[in-house]
Amino acid sequence: MTGAALGDVVPLSQMRRVASARVLYADTDKMGIVYHASYLRYLELARVELLRVAGLPYTRMEASGLALPLTDLAVTYRAPARYDDLMALNVALVVATRVRVAFQYRITLEPGDAAAALDPNEQDERGERIEILVAQTRHCCVRREDGRPERMPPDVWQLLHAQVPLRV
Amino acid sequence: MTGAALGDVVPLSQMRRVASARVLYADTDKMGIVYHASYLRYLELARVELLRVAGLPYTRMEASGLALPLTDLAVTYRAPARYDDLMALNVALVVATRVRVAFQYRITLEPGDAAAALDPNEQDERGERIEILVAQTRHCCVRREDGRPERMPPDVWQLLHAQVPLRV
Amino acid sequence: MTGAALGDVVPLSQMRRVASARVLYADTDKMGIVYHASYLRYLELARVELLRVAGLPYTRMEASGLALPLTDLAVTYRAPARYDDLMALNVALVVATRVRVAFQYRITLEPGDAAAALDPNEQDERGERIEILVAQTRHCCVRREDGRPERMPPDVWQLLHAQVPLRV
Amino acid sequence: MTGAALGDVVPLSQMRRVASARVLYADTDKMGIVYHASYLRYLELARVELLRVAGLPYTRMEASGLALPLTDLAVTYRAPARYDDLMALNVALVVATRVRVAFQYRITLEPGDAAAALDPNEQDERGERIEILVAQTRHCCVRREDGRPERMPPDVWQLLHAQVPLRV
Repeated sequence: MTGAALGDVVPLSQMRRVASARVLYADTDKMGIVYHASYLRYLELARVELLRVAGLPYTRMEASGLALPLTDLAVTYRAPARYDDLMALNVALVVATRVRVAFQYRITLEPGDAAAALDPNEQDERGERIEILVAQTRHCCVRREDGRPERMPPDVWQLLHAQVPLRV
Repeated sequence: MTGAALGDVVPLSQMRRVASARVLYADTDKMGIVYHASYLRYLELARVELLRVAGLPYTRMEASGLALPLTDLAVTYRAPARYDDLMALNVALVVATRVRVAFQYRITLEPGDAAAALDPNEQDERGERIEILVAQTRHCCVRREDGRPERMPPDVWQLLHAQVPLRV
Repeated sequence: MTGAALGDVVPLSQMRRVASARVLYADTDKMGIVYHASYLRYLELARVELLRVAGLPYTRMEASGLALPLTDLAVTYRAPARYDDLMALNVALVVATRVRVAFQYRITLEPGDAAAALDPNEQDERGERIEILVAQTRHCCVRREDGRPERMPPDVWQLLHAQVPLRV
Repeated sequence: MTGAALGDVVPLSQMRRVASARVLYADTDKMGIVYHASYLRYLELARVELLRVAGLPYTRMEASGLALPLTDLAVTYRAPARYDDLMALNVALVVATRVRVAFQYRITLEPGDAAAALDPNEQDERGERIEILVAQTRHCCVRREDGRPERMPPDVWQLLHAQVPLRV
């Protein structure tokens, strides 16, 4: 049991940086770092912004009677983010069939940030971007009405599928 | 990419039911079900209560200069919990070395609940307990002072290790 | 501007202690104390348990097509709660007309708690119960369907009104 | 008891619009609207951005050994925000002595938003900006070390005081 929670995650270069977010007191815990569950709202923010970029705002999906509830979640925490850190939210769609989608995420510390400039946490010893976490969420397409699995209409699926990066 | 996020999870019979919790409005989202991130505080509640049962309240761990930050999280969502549902929180320690521990969890709907009695959601068609989710968290033992990995003292480790169910 | 946010609050002796709750990491912030917004879910827990005691679980209210959304909130924070503290949740209905209700709350540190026994925070210098906060929420009765104000049926109102403590 | 929770609040024209924020699923509850406690992180976001604008990022305040814990909170909820709404966060410092500060807030629906364009919720019948809530928080200046009240250094206080709008 208990192998690695996450398999391969696409590299940062194949993700889209859709937003940044600054750590609030609300996100921290008494260890002085971001509480592990606080990151999940930033994952949601990342994927809804990716859907918006794809021309498929989630509100439109809902208007057509569909929803994409989360069925699986995996997160590997690599380094803690701290109060007032500016985080970059990077995301990719990695699976898009007519009934299932999956997103992968990398949250990194945003460079060139005033707070980070005071704080050597921004970079590792080699001067590379510090990665806070990698994550994956899997979702199933369902009818909002009764929660039953449902195939997406082809035009919806094509908008999503066009976002999946080519894998060599 | 990335098969199932979770490998084997110990059966309910090898877990300890440490607490129950009733779903609040605060936990729900506009789909009318518990928002996926809201369950994480219930996982925390489950593991701190298991540590307390083990004779090792987390405050004692902290008092000895140690912490157990979460390094990996995996959740598979099986069925939604709804407002006012009473959930049973079941947990087991599945790994306890001197530097790493892992917990597994099963959240089920609590039977015999007044709300559930009105609501056939409590059982599946065969009358079995409905499982909301299974999950696993992995943690690393570190010094609170500087976040460096640190081996637990033998007496602390033994208390934890005694909680790990025998595996055949 | 703006005097005290809260007027008179009924004394602890006229409130009902409906539940206790132990502070989780999830509730704390980097000051090492409970983040001010984290208490609000405990206020919700207190009022739904009071409604249940009154014979009017909120699910029944919803089943009859009504809701009690919050219109006003006021909190005065008196002392911080800390990780693993056990809090007593005390609540009273102080107004119950057919269109408006108001609840008042006092959160205190639970005495006789193992964590508190290690920690002199439980009592003030005179040995009295430490009060974490006092609060008030006001709610309006509306139809769930369209959010319009609606008078409660007399039988519902009577159940609520019976909970309002007598004021001399 | 139970007069209005909030006294006079400065008009929108005397506040600074410091940020906008889009409503996430994480913020909503089963009524389909933003859960009342979810707004509090947006109030925090508003006040830290106002402090940043004032030349006094909160991290600098902490670096000088001071903190501004919240002592009182009052919110009046006027209209619900919904999923994907874009909210404008408006804030003013209304009190700044050397030991106490107070902020007031107005959250409004952001006009010209794509989601809002589909949705007549953005305006009231007269075409005016819809106000979601008004709020006030009061804070006390304390030493981080022991939580004791402490007077701010004059230079810190002057930066804050310069943000208080003139009152006729």
